[in-house]
This record gives sequence, structure tokens and C-alpha cells, in this order.
Amino acid sequence: MNHDEILESIVKRNNAKIALIIMDGIGDIRNPKFNNKTPLEYAKTPNLDQLASEGVLGRLLPVSYGITPGSGPGHIGLFGFDPMSVLIGRGVLEAVGLGIELNDNDVAARCNFATMDSDMNITDRRAGRIPTEKTIELCDILSQIKSIDGVDIDITPGTGHRFVVVFRSKNHKLGANINDTDPQVEGRPTLVAEGSDEASQFLASVVNKFIAQGLELLKDYPLTNTFLTRGFSEKPKLPSMRERYKLEAAAIAGYPMYRGIASLLGMKLLDSPQTIDGLFDVYQENWQKYNFFFIHVKGTDQAGEDGDFLGKVDCIEQLDKGLTKLLKFKPDVIAVTGDHSSPVPMRSHSFHPVPLLITSRLSGTDNAFFFDENSCNTGALGTFESKYLMTLLLANAKKLNKFGA
Amino acid sequence: MNHDEILESIVKRNNAKIALIIMDGIGDIRNPKFNNKTPLEYAKTPNLDQLASEGVLGRLLPVSYGITPGSGPGHIGLFGFDPMSVLIGRGVLEAVGLGIELNDNDVAARCNFATMDSDMNITDRRAGRIPTEKTIELCDILSQIKSIDGVDIDITPGTGHRFVVVFRSKNHKLGANINDTDPQVEGRPTLVAEGSDEASQFLASVVNKFIAQGLELLKDYPLTNTFLTRGFSEKPKLPSMRERYKLEAAAIAGYPMYRGIASLLGMKLLDSPQTIDGLFDVYQENWQKYNFFFIHVKGTDQAGEDGDFLGKVDCIEQLDKGLTKLLKFKPDVIAVTGDHSSPVPMRSHSFHPVPLLITSRLSGTDNAFFFDENSCNTGALGTFESKYLMTLLLANAKKLNKFGA
Repeated sequence: MNHDEILESIVKRNNAKIALIIMDGIGDIRNPKFNNKTPLEYAKTPNLDQLASEGVLGRLLPVSYGITPGSGPGHIGLFGFDPMSVLIGRGVLEAVGLGIELNDNDVAARCNFATMDSDMNITDRRAGRIPTEKTIELCDILSQIKSIDGVDIDITPGTGHRFVVVFRSKNHKLGANINDTDPQVEGRPTLVAEGSDEASQFLASVVNKFIAQGLELLKDYPLTNTFLTRGFSEKPKLPSMRERYKLEAAAIAGYPMYRGIASLLGMKLLDSPQTIDGLFDVYQENWQKYNFFFIHVKGTDQAGEDGDFLGKVDCIEQLDKGLTKLLKFKPDVIAVTGDHSSPVPMRSHSFHPVPLLITSRLSGTDNAFFFDENSCNTGALGTFESKYLMTLLLANAKKLNKFGA
Repeated sequence: MNHDEILESIVKRNNAKIALIIMDGIGDIRNPKFNNKTPLEYAKTPNLDQLASEGVLGRLLPVSYGITPGSGPGHIGLFGFDPMSVLIGRGVLEAVGLGIELNDNDVAARCNFATMDSDMNITDRRAGRIPTEKTIELCDILSQIKSIDGVDIDITPGTGHRFVVVFRSKNHKLGANINDTDPQVEGRPTLVAEGSDEASQFLASVVNKFIAQGLELLKDYPLTNTFLTRGFSEKPKLPSMRERYKLEAAAIAGYPMYRGIASLLGMKLLDSPQTIDGLFDVYQENWQKYNFFFIHVKGTDQAGEDGDFLGKVDCIEQLDKGLTKLLKFKPDVIAVTGDHSSPVPMRSHSFHPVPLLITSRLSGTDNAFFFDENSCNTGALGTFESKYLMTLLLANAKKLNKFGA
């Protein structure tokens, strides 16, 4: 038996409630400009430190040593799947990030408007980075194409020059093993879409017709007279949180991408609050109805990517204040961690293990009393792969039977 | 995808330089005779402690919990291969340790002179442990056999009663799936060589003829009138450091075995210095030409195996002094660790995890400030398998792209 098979054989329902608070990109490295502290070390976090002293600390490895994860692999691991095996395609991630609901047999592609010359060679792969409003207008025009060969075509504008196309069919099996039509370099024509199996060959022929019809509609717009398609992909076949963990799960997340990932796992999407404090208002309104809450804080990652140390500190302190509302209706198990690190000095996602805190009646306590990177290094949980976190939370919630006699 | 496939998809070239300093057998256990300290705790190491306070610490597990590695598995892990899957045969390890260059289709065997009685039963498997000079003389005699059935035979004396035979052929495919002819116990005759596939059957017949002809040549030397062959093996098919990591790698190592392992990985072998200080002279002469340096210190292992606590301390302090020369032309990423532990009280290789230090602009810092076993236990890197070290070094050198969107 492997870990997943054991888990399946021992998981059971009970009423215990789990809150998993994800501070996106929370991990950091010490910053010489701020007393050689990390944002977590610098921030005033009485609630987090109280939880740390009541519980146990450790560090999560999102994928593996030295691997910097994107948001997809980062979250897939947190929800107990192997992020090396369960890959969310770029088209799907972009689609769910725009709030598009995907069904089986849907294929999504991320697209962008581009410029080509009279020989049909691409001269600008991003069409001069046109603004979102222009993309909305052009998507309206392309949306005249409703269906080709029994395949419905659903076009959704994104930000800047980007948009998403979802192909849907009730009559045909669609496949996503289709190459990008983006030639990757300028000075060359777009590539012809080709499928590597029968269902993908069928959809590739539809894609080629869609591109030909689209070019006809765009011919009077010289700056945006073509578009490139990439990342053809289908919704990964994932069990829901109810199927896998017997949990009634709800997501409280303001950002579409994280709502999208939650929806792939069958979580109920609760109201989308605009502030960190608002996340916990939504929790208070719903705490009785579910027994698993995925609460997602985006600001820590944004501040990290912006290189904004004090912004990250502020976001952490807001989260800490918000926790007061959570603690009023305290779940049986509270975990605080991130999907990856985004250190301020790097202004990007990174490979550094992520601080982790778990507290429950069963968690025990250790000698690490503050929720920061260096306390977490010495905590009872050690460093382990994110994909094992869910099992540990279920164990803390007494939702797992003994394995073996 | 697995770890290796992900690595292959994200690795990129840049100019950042990495130095990996291997102190062979560095890990130890506390010694009651020396204030209950380990050699690393006892030694005065201002440079290592400075690097420790600037970087992060942890411990490496060469193969797995409780497994004591030989030099082969120990180094194979450090260079990012799974030492449980990539096995360097004993014949090959002995051959590269003697500086013999091996090509595809070469088969190497380690051999030793032995004594047999008139019934051809082995009476001494080590021929009274004859000195190296005697072995050189006997190898000269055996070297009269130049070729059998189109297979060239290349004999190289080793230390004591040991020697290596390499079989080479341009016309025949040679196989190494051949049993040892060493009967393992005295009082029995040598075994007949048998191959378990066609290419090995062919070479086994050559081996048997070689032994018969050799016995004829040795018949006037009663103490060394036979020899035993063991560890038939071929060069493992490993990608070079350039192929796998896009690194221009150089090895600075005084001992043939480590030069041999480096050559199996396509590293450039730089001058072979006789002192620890000399390792860093070679580094200074070459630091601009490569972006990965494998610097190997042998003395720590020798002192461990000799049970020489102060010898190990002295070697560590010499390394620490030598680091001054490295720091003058400081690489972007510095890692210091070992291929395994060789604790002084055990006088042998051991299973204990090995101290590890990594420092770079991205490494971050932790609360472990001294490069010794017990500080390393509390560092930010935790304890992990050696095979992941290379990925972490590449990440610190910004030589890896993000995985997934």
C-alpha cells in the first residue's frame, strides 16, 4: 500500500473543524535593510505567536529541494496531491483564474493577441501590450464565432493582451494533446495546430479553422490582426475533498485563481471578500456549515513579488488581527502556512521551505514559540513535503483510524 | 514527472559559480576523550563559522537511514544521482581509482594474487599480503598476455596484493555479468567464470583462458601461484555535468579515486595537489574558467579511519585556513559537506548524517552559527538525501526556472 491507499482505508467523518490558512508566498529570507529580520520576524503577531506556543511548528517543502513552484503545484501539494504527478495545465489554470467553470471534455487554451506582417510572420507576440479594454473589444468580435464542427467556442478576455478560449462539445470527444501555435520567436508564422491522438487531432482541426475565421474577423485591426494559442489542457481528474477526505470543504478566497483551484477540488466557493479582515467575516458567517475551510491571503505574495518588505509586514499584521475573529469560533485544528515562499529580496517565488504552524488539542507543543522561519526550523514537525499536510490535519482532527492491527 | 524530469525541464545556464567542498568522512560523533566534542566542534574554524553564520545549515543523508555508504555511493549522491540505482561496479571503482580511463565496452575486474596447493585449492586468498613492489613485478609477468580471442588485456598493479585487469575489444561486444572466480573461502578451488548473457559468456571464456595462461606464467612462484578475479563491471552510463546541469565543471582532487569519479561525470581534472592548501592554489588559478568546482579533501576520512582525533582536527583547521584563498575569489554559492561520516571512535565509514553548509546571496541565514554536527541539526536545511543537494545548489545559483504556472 502507498500513502494514498492507506489514507483512503482509514479516513472517516466526524464533526471536527479544520481551518487551513494559506498566506501566499509567506516564506522569506532575512533582510539586511530591516535589522536582518524576515517579514514574519519583524511583524507584530500576537495571535500567531499564541498559536505557535500552543501548537507545533515546521517547514513545508512545496515540491522538492531547490524547486520553485508556481501557484498550481504549490496549492496542489497543500491539498494532498503529488504536485509532480498532478499537473494543472496552463490553459486550465488561466481559465479557472478567470472564474470559468470547466467540465469534463472541455479543453482550455490561453491565448494572446499578436501582430503579423503581410507575409503572415509574427512581428509582435504581444500586440504592443494592448490594454484590457481593447482585448475585451476584440474578444467581442471573435465571439461571433460560436461553434465549429459541433464544438462550442467560449471566449473570455483576461488582463492586457491575454484571453482564454474554452472548447466544449457534447457530440465529440475532445483531446488536449495539441501543440502551441505560438512560434515563440518573432519573424515566423504561427504554427499549425496538430493533435497527437484522435480526439486531439479532431480538436486541432477545429482550432485551425477557428484561427482562420478569427483572422478574417481581425483583418481590419492591423496591430491585433492575429492571435497565438498555448497551453491546451483539460481539467485534471481530481477527486473532490468530500470523496478523498470525507470533508465538507469551503473556500474563502478573494482571487479568482485560488477560487478556481478550490473549485477543481469541489470546494464550496464562499463570498469573495476584498480585505483580509473580510476573509474572517465570511468565516464567521459560515463556520457552522462546513468542517474544512481553505482561507487564502494573497497580499503576502504580492508584496514579496513587489519587493515591498513593509507591505508584507502589514499584510501579516492584518492577518494576525483577523485571526481574532477566527479564534472567536475556534476550529478544532488550525494550520497556517503558504503555498511557497516569495522572499522580498528576490521579488519572485522561491525554493525556500515554507513556515508551518499546526495547533489542535492533539498537536502537542514544542520549544518553538514564534511563527517565523527560524523558529519553524527547530519545531516538532521538521521539514516535509506539502503533500503530507492534509493527512496530518486529518490526524489532528481525529478523522483517521489506526492503520493495521 | 519525477524530480529528475522536472530538473531537466527547468535548468538553465548562467555565469554564477558554485564551489562544492567535500571533506571526506567529515561527520563524527562526540568523543569523551576530547571534552566530549566532535572534531568539528573541537577545531578552530573561523572561516567555516563565518560561512555558517552567513548561510544555512543542515545534514545530508548519503543513501538512507542507517546505511553506511562506500565512496562510490557517497559521491554519486552528492552529484545528484540516486545512489541506490546508479551503482559503480567495484572493478570500475578500482580502475578509475588507479587513474585508468575507461571507455564504453571496457570491462574492469579487481584481482588479487593468492596461493593454492597442488590440488589447486586456495590456501591463502591474499598470498600472505605481499608488498606492492612484488605485485608490480608479478603484473609485469602477467602482462606478457596481451590479447586473447581479439580481446585486449590491460593489467595495472594496485596496492599490496591487488591489481586491476581491463578487458577491451573493438570487434566483440563484452558483457560484465560474470561471477567472481574468488571462492570466498580457503580450501576450495577458484570458480570457473560464467556469463549470464551472450556478451558476458564470450568474455567469461576469455577470462577462463586468461586465468589458465596466467597460472602457467606464475607456476614458479609458489606463494603467488594463482589469482582471484572479482567485481566485473562496466562504466556506468552517466550524463556529464554539462549535459545534466549545464555546468562547466572542474575537479580539484589529489586522490585517484575521486579524480576517477569526477571523470565518469565528464569533469575537467585540474592539477592534483598534494596538500590541502594546494587545492585552493589550483582553485585560484582556474576560478575564472569554470562555473562548478568539486574540491575534495581526503585527510578527514583517513584520520577518521585511523582513529586519529587530533589528525582529523588538524585537517579541518588546514581546510579552514585554505578557505581564505577561496574567499579571495568568492564563488556565488559555497557548499561544504562530506560524502559520508567516518567517526574517530568507529575507525570506519558510518551511517551518521553528514554536516552541510550552504551560503549564497539567496541562501538566507538561520540561527545555527557554527559548522559542526549539532549546530547543523538545528539549521534551516533540515536533514535530506544527498541526491537533492545539486538541485539546491543550482537553485541558490539561480540556474533553475520556476516549475509550473
